[in-house]
Amino acid sequence: MKKQYLLAPGPTPVPPEVLLAMSAPMIHHRSPDFIPVIQKVRTGLKWLFQTSQEVLTVAGSGTAGMEASISNFMSPGDKIIAVNGGKFGERWLKIAKAFGVNAIEVPVTWGDSVDVAKVEDLLKKDPSIKGVYVQASETSTGVWHDIKSLAQITSRLSGTILVVDAITALGVVDIPMDAWGIDVLITGSQKALMLPPGLAFIAVSEKAWTLNQSAKCARFYLDLKREKDNILKDSNAWTPAVSLWIGLGKALEMMQKEGLENIFARHRMLAQATREGIKGFGLSIFARQSPSDALTAVVAPEGFDGELIYKNLRNQYGITAAGGQDQLKGKVFRISHMGYADVFDIITAISGVEMVLARMGYKGAPLGSGVARAQAVMIGQ
Amino acid sequence: MKKQYLLAPGPTPVPPEVLLAMSAPMIHHRSPDFIPVIQKVRTGLKWLFQTSQEVLTVAGSGTAGMEASISNFMSPGDKIIAVNGGKFGERWLKIAKAFGVNAIEVPVTWGDSVDVAKVEDLLKKDPSIKGVYVQASETSTGVWHDIKSLAQITSRLSGTILVVDAITALGVVDIPMDAWGIDVLITGSQKALMLPPGLAFIAVSEKAWTLNQSAKCARFYLDLKREKDNILKDSNAWTPAVSLWIGLGKALEMMQKEGLENIFARHRMLAQATREGIKGFGLSIFARQSPSDALTAVVAPEGFDGELIYKNLRNQYGITAAGGQDQLKGKVFRISHMGYADVFDIITAISGVEMVLARMGYKGAPLGSGVARAQAVMIGQ
Repeated sequence: MKKQYLLAPGPTPVPPEVLLAMSAPMIHHRSPDFIPVIQKVRTGLKWLFQTSQEVLTVAGSGTAGMEASISNFMSPGDKIIAVNGGKFGERWLKIAKAFGVNAIEVPVTWGDSVDVAKVEDLLKKDPSIKGVYVQASETSTGVWHDIKSLAQITSRLSGTILVVDAITALGVVDIPMDAWGIDVLITGSQKALMLPPGLAFIAVSEKAWTLNQSAKCARFYLDLKREKDNILKDSNAWTPAVSLWIGLGKALEMMQKEGLENIFARHRMLAQATREGIKGFGLSIFARQSPSDALTAVVAPEGFDGELIYKNLRNQYGITAAGGQDQLKGKVFRISHMGYADVFDIITAISGVEMVLARMGYKGAPLGSGVARAQAVMIGQ
Repeated sequence: MKKQYLLAPGPTPVPPEVLLAMSAPMIHHRSPDFIPVIQKVRTGLKWLFQTSQEVLTVAGSGTAGMEASISNFMSPGDKIIAVNGGKFGERWLKIAKAFGVNAIEVPVTWGDSVDVAKVEDLLKKDPSIKGVYVQASETSTGVWHDIKSLAQITSRLSGTILVVDAITALGVVDIPMDAWGIDVLITGSQKALMLPPGLAFIAVSEKAWTLNQSAKCARFYLDLKREKDNILKDSNAWTPAVSLWIGLGKALEMMQKEGLENIFARHRMLAQATREGIKGFGLSIFARQSPSDALTAVVAPEGFDGELIYKNLRNQYGITAAGGQDQLKGKVFRISHMGYADVFDIITAISGVEMVLARMGYKGAPLGSGVARAQAVMIGQ
């Protein structure tokens, strides 16, 4: 018997109530049985996205949402800015290339947050730029980009949209779409929404819908206008992933019961406790300036392999965190504190890291020193 | 208390064993926990598709599979033949248009099966046609198209692929991909595979992979080459719909236990019993020549509204069948006998139709006459 703990930045644990809801017998998506599910989801997603716009749901991974945010608003040859500070920032460039869109890269050193002035400068120099594409929380580095400031810039421009990949951000941190003036806001099911992977969500501002009218990139399955026309009639363009929708209704109900402010405060506290716990054990956080409250990328101490720490957490203690991706492989490991997470998940994570590293010969700090710091944050000391 | 019966042509009922498997705690798709799931699914899908090729799985509806079958093998301006004998045949034309592909329509009167000689003739006249796109089972009409004969034609042509939408056909009827020489074979999760909607499957022949190398249609999320490169390493290009994959492993296990021949024989018998039962009650089948074994489209008797029959089945007896789509709305209703279905589902369907129509004033045949004919087929009389 070994209990399993899922502490990876997606998929995150699914609450038993949601698993149970998804285990009900199948219903037909075009029958009256599904209407209450759609209505509950429509209302709940608008609440979560803090928008008066419809939030569109497609069967697909987060990448489907990212692709839709390019193909539905741009034409081949159009210019966009792509903020690239990690594996998911890179993906904007790859998608743009696949669709013939001309992406101007704003490279950001992995671990740093984007320099907003650089983006502003580019937009000033070239008013033909139609979109700024950025992650809110870059999952590969655990960095938070300053979305609010970017939105202040783009919302003054009539022909430039701000597209935010909030896949590990929405439902973690306050990102009020309408209040900030975000144009396209994307998330996925398997992060703060506490669902299995398989759904992507995209909300679209009026400004972006205007761009949509002239956007010529090829699209069919991910045609958001078609989804909007359907959801307004409590319907879907294509067969929806019924069981995930039902689970989504339940997860939104749980989130609404907790309340947005409480959700954000919980994530802030858990993230803070994790970072302090990690530092209390003598380790450092990879995000130098602006760490995300969704996950923490921890720098493997000198002489210790991050991949081995990840493996030992799994094999010795049943904890599935995440390793580093691409250039960070072996250099960091990542702990999620997003979604269905509470204080004891963080205690588990920190104490697990302590025991694993102690067994590997790490002498940087005594056992329990990280846990104690995390506990202090948790009780507000 | 009213028991519910799902007899629609997708989603179809999900077996309790599959629901249970999908209710397990979430696991991470890049951890070793998921490898056995991937391996089981790879083996099972090859078996089901009767192919030595990898079967590629994407998070999306069946339409995602249809789009991928165009965007991965064609370039803008390329010519294809689209067999259009129903709502799903029409979809080829719409997808081709969205990607700038030049689709030559072979129109088929709804309810009829494609005239294979017409397709052969077009291919002879224009060797530049790169693909023939067709449904095996057209879900809107309940018609079966002669895939084997089409494959005999296209397999002689080195530059023309046969793309078969087998969304309501695979796992119902014998469609041996490799033996017949089908180039792209598509299905979805919510039909004979007995899963919730949310997965599309695409298998690709060597001939089609050759076309893929020069295909210039825009694609990223549905890039099949990327999925192939990943699945060969027991991985996925993007985050897979983990719970659906786990359910898929269980469903494939159940199907393998039953065996392909038994699965096909069961569907043949249930389809035959349904058709005979319907005729035994004095009604007629919409598919005039070549009915599909996946579902039966029943013509509403003169003076009776098909939509009302559908609604009464639901409201009076808890049976969710399906109405007619587009031009068939009100004219037919559709009963599925696909996936997790046995003789008593058919008895339920036929007796439900009898009771509903009798209550609506239908006098074409006595109550029980359809059931008796269906029973006779079931016991081989």
